[in-house]
Amino acid sequence: MTSANHFELLRLDGQARTGRLTTPHGEVRTPAFMPVGTAGAMKGLHWREVRDAGSDIVLGNTYHLMLRPGAERIAALGGLQKFTGWNGPMLTDSGGFQVMSLSELRKVSEHAVTFRSHIDGAKVELSPERSIEVQRLLGADIAMQMDECVRLPAERGDIERAMQLSLRWAERSKRAFETAAPGYMLFGIVQGGDVPGLRHASAGGLVEIGFDGYAIGGLAVGEPQSVMLGMIEETAPVLPQGRPRYLMGVGTPEDMLEAVARGIDMFDCVMPTRNGRHGMAFTRFGQLNLRNARHADDIRPLDEESAWPSTRNCSRAYLHHLVRSGETLGAMLLSEINVAYYQRLMHDIRDAISQGTFASFRERTTAGWAKGDIAPR
Amino acid sequence: MTSANHFELLRLDGQARTGRLTTPHGEVRTPAFMPVGTAGAMKGLHWREVRDAGSDIVLGNTYHLMLRPGAERIAALGGLQKFTGWNGPMLTDSGGFQVMSLSELRKVSEHAVTFRSHIDGAKVELSPERSIEVQRLLGADIAMQMDECVRLPAERGDIERAMQLSLRWAERSKRAFETAAPGYMLFGIVQGGDVPGLRHASAGGLVEIGFDGYAIGGLAVGEPQSVMLGMIEETAPVLPQGRPRYLMGVGTPEDMLEAVARGIDMFDCVMPTRNGRHGMAFTRFGQLNLRNARHADDIRPLDEESAWPSTRNCSRAYLHHLVRSGETLGAMLLSEINVAYYQRLMHDIRDAISQGTFASFRERTTAGWAKGDIAPR
Repeated sequence: MTSANHFELLRLDGQARTGRLTTPHGEVRTPAFMPVGTAGAMKGLHWREVRDAGSDIVLGNTYHLMLRPGAERIAALGGLQKFTGWNGPMLTDSGGFQVMSLSELRKVSEHAVTFRSHIDGAKVELSPERSIEVQRLLGADIAMQMDECVRLPAERGDIERAMQLSLRWAERSKRAFETAAPGYMLFGIVQGGDVPGLRHASAGGLVEIGFDGYAIGGLAVGEPQSVMLGMIEETAPVLPQGRPRYLMGVGTPEDMLEAVARGIDMFDCVMPTRNGRHGMAFTRFGQLNLRNARHADDIRPLDEESAWPSTRNCSRAYLHHLVRSGETLGAMLLSEINVAYYQRLMHDIRDAISQGTFASFRERTTAGWAKGDIAPR
Repeated sequence: MTSANHFELLRLDGQARTGRLTTPHGEVRTPAFMPVGTAGAMKGLHWREVRDAGSDIVLGNTYHLMLRPGAERIAALGGLQKFTGWNGPMLTDSGGFQVMSLSELRKVSEHAVTFRSHIDGAKVELSPERSIEVQRLLGADIAMQMDECVRLPAERGDIERAMQLSLRWAERSKRAFETAAPGYMLFGIVQGGDVPGLRHASAGGLVEIGFDGYAIGGLAVGEPQSVMLGMIEETAPVLPQGRPRYLMGVGTPEDMLEAVARGIDMFDCVMPTRNGRHGMAFTRFGQLNLRNARHADDIRPLDEESAWPSTRNCSRAYLHHLVRSGETLGAMLLSEINVAYYQRLMHDIRDAISQGTFASFRERTTAGWAKGDIAPR
């Protein structure tokens, strides 16, 4: 069974794709990077900066939001978009992944995951049905099925068991989503670890159920980049060409560029904000550590050709000082600078695909990162 | 001896004054509130927000900046305005006050204060001459003489000794400033604790030396508001009408309103940003604690009539959630909201004085604070 398609594939360039996803809260240009607004806020950025940086869509974490302030409360306040003031498209994860990584005393059964809240220790049950209910209460434009993700490396038996459970949960998630208002979307999640056969089976099973889009989960969980790219190559051909493909939790600029080259349309990652808080800047010269003493007397900006004001105007010496002094403004500036770099990269990727020049763009961009930072002065 | 006057007194309304101070980096409308950018950064605010909030001038802390990144380094990088990207007027304190409150093993002699840096334990000497040198290296539009501030309550003998030392340091500071470029200003600091006679003697001595402006120091250090206002009343009449008057480290909105009524032109305080980081909002309804459960389900903004977007648009429920969750954005929003409220108050004070309606403005504003927050819904 398939539903109305809200994704328009605009152009193919090799395997790379550019398109447009229409959601109840606006359009998303793909390939798209979704900054992560964990608990209804982006760490270190105002929403206006998230928007100005070129973000069409952001990700909210169901696990955090259901525990605090609570899904029913957010629904009563008009939904997550109204609550936060981010009035654009929003995707929520199912909560399952963070239950596994953040909560204690979790127990996975066929029916649900039971866990204790990391905030107040309360016992909470999260079933596929409750996950969908929570995501609908939050008002997510795109909801994710609940799945079980296995950390790699893992035994094939464990990977297969989790993949099969995820497929059954996919079916239940789909059923729970049937009464959603038109235009709202549900994505299935391909599991199967690093085993090609299991990835094929998972993707095939999901396509049979039928989703608005397909995510590839269970990657960027500790495996080498080559394994991740290999799994994308195994999975993408099984997925329908006309539906969006989302690689969850990825990644570095290079990860994203390589994944786009293999047919991925959407990404999310905490890296630009998290690394920003730790003094790292993403630039066309690669990732720079502003804590490094070489920047202490360098009046030059990170990148004088950048279109983003802080990247073009703030001196390396100032950023270095802010990072060394532990000033909040350092984290704020670098988080903003990094999100802007990620979005600029997505913008340039879309442009290159539209013009059929993605291959040379990819080569040029990768060479820029490999060349490294400008010489010290 | 007096110097060229860069202050124009535009209007008197009772004792309240409005004027214009012209500095090398721009004009300052008085009464003026100076947000505190401790170590070359405002905590939780971008410089563009400091400016947008209506700040004409900010304060930098000599103590912090001389230790890290260092005055000579900032000078080599083009000065504090260029270094930080805040391209407006800047006042620096002398460093003396923070040596007293932050550093260990400090020793005050006639010549200088010797102390150990709280960052790396290095032994540092700060004399009046070095303080002025540092402030000139930083490029401050307004430098402050070095003084010794006594915490109240204190013995009269201690207060007098510190006041006399501060007067001798005032003289040395003035001498050290003689070669400063035209347009740059040096303010003297009235000390004398809570003893009217010592305040008179201090102010008189400073006026005899002659400064571009006069600060009242050693207040808001633990004494009741009535004592602070009493000391302003004792001091203001001794100061020349045509020079700016700066009440250091003050204060709450009510402190500032009352001080303006007694002839003060300038203020600085960490309160809007520090209290913002602790979940407090300054509004025309008084100071509100966003941590309070009454806000959890309140979709209304802090003040729907505010001209500042975040104050008018962010719901109390959202701010409550951000504060409770420890999200940086909560501190960022409340710091911005508070600085904007302080600057709006200054703007309205200047307007009222210009129109000769300060008395009724003061009454109305105080009544609004006393009435308290809007009723819970």
